[in-house]
Amino acid sequence: MSKVVLASRNQKKIVEVRRILAEVGSTIELLGLDDLDIDVEDVPETGATFMENALIKARSVVEQTGFAALADDSGLVVDALNGMPGVLSARWAGRHGDDDANLELVINQISDVPDERRGGGFVCAVALVRPGGVVIESEGIVRGRLLREPAGENGFGYDPIFVPDGYTVTTAQMSAAEKDSLSHRGRALRALAAQL
Amino acid sequence: MSKVVLASRNQKKIVEVRRILAEVGSTIELLGLDDLDIDVEDVPETGATFMENALIKARSVVEQTGFAALADDSGLVVDALNGMPGVLSARWAGRHGDDDANLELVINQISDVPDERRGGGFVCAVALVRPGGVVIESEGIVRGRLLREPAGENGFGYDPIFVPDGYTVTTAQMSAAEKDSLSHRGRALRALAAQL
Repeated sequence: MSKVVLASRNQKKIVEVRRILAEVGSTIELLGLDDLDIDVEDVPETGATFMENALIKARSVVEQTGFAALADDSGLVVDALNGMPGVLSARWAGRHGDDDANLELVINQISDVPDERRGGGFVCAVALVRPGGVVIESEGIVRGRLLREPAGENGFGYDPIFVPDGYTVTTAQMSAAEKDSLSHRGRALRALAAQL
Repeated sequence: MSKVVLASRNQKKIVEVRRILAEVGSTIELLGLDDLDIDVEDVPETGATFMENALIKARSVVEQTGFAALADDSGLVVDALNGMPGVLSARWAGRHGDDDANLELVINQISDVPDERRGGGFVCAVALVRPGGVVIESEGIVRGRLLREPAGENGFGYDPIFVPDGYTVTTAQMSAAEKDSLSHRGRALRALAAQL
């Protein structure tokens, strides 16, 4: 079993990635940044795309720890916001990682947008970087529409307003297994695991 | 001298439009919504473009007042935000007309964006609608770059972080006359006045 560090301190994300990898029979032992004895410094995510940011994060963790590193960068693309919050999804309201403020801001920004223009999608870019420099990249996307009010308690981030195409409930109203089966992160990670 | 109602309650905008029209020798007597005895209801600005919103606002004022109406819709387009805040510039932080919150949010959202990707522009669409239904449309744009910290006390909105191409100061550090000579609103209004 090989050790891989997930370039994240988000416990919910670590649990989700670990679960998806386990389901596809991956033998990776996934550690979060906070599980290490090494103090890993965060790098600014200055990439213009999800994949650029995933690579920036994974490479930085490899350099600082010597372990292989898995990083994802993912976010919500809102059609009425020209594809934003995009790479800024985690800091849309101005501070990093304030899920409630980010969600409330998107809800308010598109409150006047009519139903026919409320499309959007979740996008996930995943990069696995090994100490030798080998890189494996993968992307997943799920399209859907955005509700005016949040619904559901599961998931995190923008899940409470996102209804995937073909469904009538938000990803925050789904079980973890159901969400993983269709989610952007599930798709990206299964495609990546298939390349290992 | 013909009476035209500007579809706005923003006193700074009314003063700016009046000044620009006076400079080009227009004989229009411009009234703000709050200068009327009629109680004009605001309409939701649901347009996907600046011009759609200008037309929505002007037509609504004509219908409610019987006067000719001039409306502008304008905003900041930020390259690193895929052209947003765009039509949402006045409510970017989630509430209408909170200039300070809108400005602070954009500053924070693009705080990690490197210098070479900090381009942007001010866009202004102007529509004059007469009771008979005659419409005159005009657009103006000024390109520039976005500072990391606000500078200057003049103007309003996003002026304190916007440096037009060819200049070294923000539009909030310019005199009113200097700003009008180059601004998106100045360009749109002069082009409109030329059609009257």
